Amino acid sequence: MLHFSASLTKLIGELKKLPGVGEKTALRLALHLLKSPANVHALAESLMEVGSRVRFCSTCFGITEADPCAICTGNRDVSLLCVVEEPQDMLAIERSHSFKGRYHVLQGALSPLNGVTPAQLRIRELMERLEKGECKEVVLATNFTVEGEATALYLTHLIKPTGIRITRLAHGIPLGSDLEYVDLATVQRAMEGRSEL
Amino acid sequence: MLHFSASLTKLIGELKKLPGVGEKTALRLALHLLKSPANVHALAESLMEVGSRVRFCSTCFGITEADPCAICTGNRDVSLLCVVEEPQDMLAIERSHSFKGRYHVLQGALSPLNGVTPAQLRIRELMERLEKGECKEVVLATNFTVEGEATALYLTHLIKPTGIRITRLAHGIPLGSDLEYVDLATVQRAMEGRSEL
Repeated sequence: MLHFSASLTKLIGELKKLPGVGEKTALRLALHLLKSPANVHALAESLMEVGSRVRFCSTCFGITEADPCAICTGNRDVSLLCVVEEPQDMLAIERSHSFKGRYHVLQGALSPLNGVTPAQLRIRELMERLEKGECKEVVLATNFTVEGEATALYLTHLIKPTGIRITRLAHGIPLGSDLEYVDLATVQRAMEGRSEL
Repeated sequence: MLHFSASLTKLIGELKKLPGVGEKTALRLALHLLKSPANVHALAESLMEVGSRVRFCSTCFGITEADPCAICTGNRDVSLLCVVEEPQDMLAIERSHSFKGRYHVLQGALSPLNGVTPAQLRIRELMERLEKGECKEVVLATNFTVEGEATALYLTHLIKPTGIRITRLAHGIPLGSDLEYVDLATVQRAMEGRSEL
């Protein structure tokens, strides 16, 4: 960072830690911020505020300012528990208004190659919640990726002995899609899962 | 931002102001930051530091902590002045070690459709520097885009009457490229600008 300031170099270093941000993007972001000092200040303040206020709910491990979170303390169907990978997945399901139970955020998915083993996920905490006996059905809503599917399979083996009903989100053709452009495996799953009209 | 915290929503709003960052990316960045509280703090501090220390040099309008900047006060060839659009362009030329003069950062390029007129750029300040009579050659190193070329043309008309020599970076085939994949216009310019061996 020839001739540039030391504090700017430091900022670029910090920005580079963000996902999907490399040297060039970090430089571009930093220089963009320099042009609007008010934004720099607002962003810094916002970060400080988030850093001090936002935490993970000690029950579901979703994001909250009050612990336990609004969903865990709210008037929800306690017999339903939806297991997701990340807080944003919880958000996606909430946005769909299709689920009235509670959530459990694993904070990741199993990926032995990347060093993510069951111990790194909130699986122990999930089993502790299930042991309380309130939950009658666990909806596995991990992603439909290799990691997500492996996690779902792992959880199925783990939960099965408790006798709790285990379900998984349906596979099929996404709404509004042209059959012609849907991938082979999705069409196969949609055919297998066809329903009577 | 259903059920998410107010301070997180605010942070997402701030992140969205960054170039190339939309709603989804802002959410992803914010949630990533949440996972590493130390990074949140370091980034916020870094921003505060940059906000208070870094400014634009009052002579060349490049980035600096001390005004005038190290290049403007350094032992440079005062008869050469390189005009660039942004501080990062100045950095690219410095990295090439091919220029020993001083710089002038326009802080943009002419783009009437986006409301960027000569008054928004540091053109008045450039002309004031040239009036001092030290400069014998102006190297126009604005980008080779429509806006950059228009800016170079505009500056040429403006500087020509002063009698100062005006040059532009050479057009041609980039090093290491396969002729087959170089665009037509670049090949044409390279042919026109061919040099004797």
